[in-house]
Amino acid sequence: MPHVTPDEFREHGHALIDRVAEYLETVEDRPVVPEIEPGAVRAMLPEHPPTQPESWDDVMADVERVVLPTITHWQHPGWFAYFPANTTYSSILGELLSAGLGVQGMSWITSPACTEIETLMLDWMQELLELPEAFRSTSRWGGGVIQGSASEATLVAILAARWRATGGDVNADGDTSLLTAYTTSQAHSSVEKGLRIAGIGTDRIRVVEHDETFAMRPAAFRDAVNADTKAGFRPFFVCSTHGTTSSMAFDPTSAIADICRVNDIWLHVDGAMSGIAALAPEHRWVNEGLEHADSYCTNPHKWMGVNFDCTLYWTTDRAALLGALSILPEYLRSAAAESGAAIDYRDWQIPLGRRFRALKLWFTIRLDGVASVQDRIRRDISLTQELAEWVAGDERFDIVAPHPLNLLCLRAAGDDLDETNERTDTLIDRINSLGKAHVTRTVLGGRSVLRVSIGARTTEREHVIALWAQLRGLIS
Amino acid sequence: MPHVTPDEFREHGHALIDRVAEYLETVEDRPVVPEIEPGAVRAMLPEHPPTQPESWDDVMADVERVVLPTITHWQHPGWFAYFPANTTYSSILGELLSAGLGVQGMSWITSPACTEIETLMLDWMQELLELPEAFRSTSRWGGGVIQGSASEATLVAILAARWRATGGDVNADGDTSLLTAYTTSQAHSSVEKGLRIAGIGTDRIRVVEHDETFAMRPAAFRDAVNADTKAGFRPFFVCSTHGTTSSMAFDPTSAIADICRVNDIWLHVDGAMSGIAALAPEHRWVNEGLEHADSYCTNPHKWMGVNFDCTLYWTTDRAALLGALSILPEYLRSAAAESGAAIDYRDWQIPLGRRFRALKLWFTIRLDGVASVQDRIRRDISLTQELAEWVAGDERFDIVAPHPLNLLCLRAAGDDLDETNERTDTLIDRINSLGKAHVTRTVLGGRSVLRVSIGARTTEREHVIALWAQLRGLIS
Repeated sequence: MPHVTPDEFREHGHALIDRVAEYLETVEDRPVVPEIEPGAVRAMLPEHPPTQPESWDDVMADVERVVLPTITHWQHPGWFAYFPANTTYSSILGELLSAGLGVQGMSWITSPACTEIETLMLDWMQELLELPEAFRSTSRWGGGVIQGSASEATLVAILAARWRATGGDVNADGDTSLLTAYTTSQAHSSVEKGLRIAGIGTDRIRVVEHDETFAMRPAAFRDAVNADTKAGFRPFFVCSTHGTTSSMAFDPTSAIADICRVNDIWLHVDGAMSGIAALAPEHRWVNEGLEHADSYCTNPHKWMGVNFDCTLYWTTDRAALLGALSILPEYLRSAAAESGAAIDYRDWQIPLGRRFRALKLWFTIRLDGVASVQDRIRRDISLTQELAEWVAGDERFDIVAPHPLNLLCLRAAGDDLDETNERTDTLIDRINSLGKAHVTRTVLGGRSVLRVSIGARTTEREHVIALWAQLRGLIS
Repeated sequence: MPHVTPDEFREHGHALIDRVAEYLETVEDRPVVPEIEPGAVRAMLPEHPPTQPESWDDVMADVERVVLPTITHWQHPGWFAYFPANTTYSSILGELLSAGLGVQGMSWITSPACTEIETLMLDWMQELLELPEAFRSTSRWGGGVIQGSASEATLVAILAARWRATGGDVNADGDTSLLTAYTTSQAHSSVEKGLRIAGIGTDRIRVVEHDETFAMRPAAFRDAVNADTKAGFRPFFVCSTHGTTSSMAFDPTSAIADICRVNDIWLHVDGAMSGIAALAPEHRWVNEGLEHADSYCTNPHKWMGVNFDCTLYWTTDRAALLGALSILPEYLRSAAAESGAAIDYRDWQIPLGRRFRALKLWFTIRLDGVASVQDRIRRDISLTQELAEWVAGDERFDIVAPHPLNLLCLRAAGDDLDETNERTDTLIDRINSLGKAHVTRTVLGGRSVLRVSIGARTTEREHVIALWAQLRGLIS
């Protein structure tokens, strides 16, 4: 009954595979960000839906005419913006298989392989990243799951923390009025968003002071907790970030953990971008303090190249997670789950439904191999350090934050804040307008900053050299 | 640097396309649900990750040996369980293109086409389903977005409602202590889950009485609202379900809306499964009362065949949605968004990151055509009514709920509750153990019920006839 038959699917599918490969191999020829105004895409398409099926050729003609010129090319070798969101060939194949099988992994019984391969992948990654044994599914209280995004991982951590701090009462009374949460101004926006969703308004979110490296000051955290406790609040959650979004700062998790232990505070560590660095043994310092964490997340969909969405979330307290999120109507009961022998991942996340996302991680680890990801991590860190040396040797620039991994934060040098801010902003605009590279602006300590994030799959040394030439040539 | 090269991707991609087509065409040869015990999948795979890259042939051999025999086959023509989660060929191609382009649609500027085509698809679907004009992005206050699941749609509706009822104060004080919410016992589990997440504990969730058709009694809703208001609570949210999960009951939305209007209660309508029926003009009664809704969702990833995940969410009050979910750190600012000319969909959902999910809906509407989906809807409803006639003509069965669309709820006839429950449960187990068809058990009014959901893409009349033969032959 569907218009696309199996044979047409084979024919179009082959063509589309070829087109995707060609796109990824030639993406450098396009400007990184399209030069269009809001509304321009819609104006190229019919305002009303078609009444008859259209041909594959017509649809692909619109992909060429409308879509490719109006997307922002995250796979471009000049992608130095935000963080990378790489999509490797192996993970594209994994996503294709997932879409083709069309199974639902909400419960073990609704597709056993979907659940069990996911659990195994989380255990494989625990091993590959050398994370604490307490994160393994085979441990007494721990385990891992694939979330759709670090935002969702943060939210489920908050919900588990909220459940534990209230002894589960929150499920019935919804009372969060005494709970206080802690993080720095450098934490990801999803921390505030998640807390707000969970009923912890900004009045009870403590923005803990950071030091000159933009890392949390443990003493400030301790003081805030003590003040809240004295005032009758119940400190319940802290987010320690391993690699902040603005400058890749590392909060001191072990020191934070000391305070959590005394005060029974849930310690969530957000290593969304940088956690993957631990695939390379010499960078396992990024795991500092994780042995004290109640939960942790890192994103293979950034540096590791597994296409979005693939966030890994581990906890050492799955009872709290299940306490917070488990709901069991009749139509979802199963013998396997009730016996405790099986994991029903619907109780580990916000949504009910879930795709077979483990396939793309499985494909990447097996087909590309971990060594290829280690190579990429080492290359990106090395290129970042090389660029940092060039920047440090040019008096027109200041480096404004530590750069232990693959993010460099720089700005125009000078004493006048307004003038240097303006020169920095102008430099960002000039680079971006050329379309050969894309960088993101941020603000650190009230100062405009140009972020250079080096991590796109296709970025080679020549692209970093070209960026440096632009930086030198375009600064006013 | 990655092991899979562009040429290997072309070669393996073609092979995988062919394999997916073959899988979908031959899925009927497999038992619907694998007969395995928890742990069986993992036992077939290495406990530790590989240290070297593996060959495509080795990986695909494991797909054949391990994965295909241990997934539950949602695309099987004997899939009468839960609800369908169809994956059409056109939508698989759309998902492949999305994975291949690897763009992020969190903001307009991070990929304009990703945002604008999504907005257009929501407007196309508003038109195709003949939903209220106030849902369109071009209306004064409305608009739509693709969510990952109906659970997330329900949660964002609750959060918008919470924001509006508190005049936005909840973002700062997190105070939900006076808010009360309403639904029936037949609403989806995600309603309770979402309310709990939002700090509305079960103490303040009112389970409103339903009638003998399992639809909400408006008078009971009104009485509950009045009692709460009198007691000093602030009734703020009701979920009216169009097609409940257990029995496809329809809550009377217009009557519910009358009470909402007087009491300023957010009216969310959950049409996750059945809303797609409105693609066929003669079934547009499923839209009853939507002109009064503050928000609505329906899932193309069920009946329409767009592979999971693709939930459509519309609201007529986008200011409340943005009020609840907008967070704007420096590194996410953009001129296009600040001018108000562009939509930044990160503020319409829980996660930050988002895939180009609109492509698969665009591909389905254009390549398959709406007529093919209308055909499927009409076929499934017709088959359900035919089966209902056969069941009604056999005194060994009772039909226990109205069946206006494609779900039939039946049970063993008889006066003894325990005995008929047991015979019903036994019948479910017998059918499922044969592996030719799969049905789900639910409980309605304390009685065991066998649900027959007819909606898999591949289900034809012969499969319903075969199911009926099993029902007749296996009932004790």
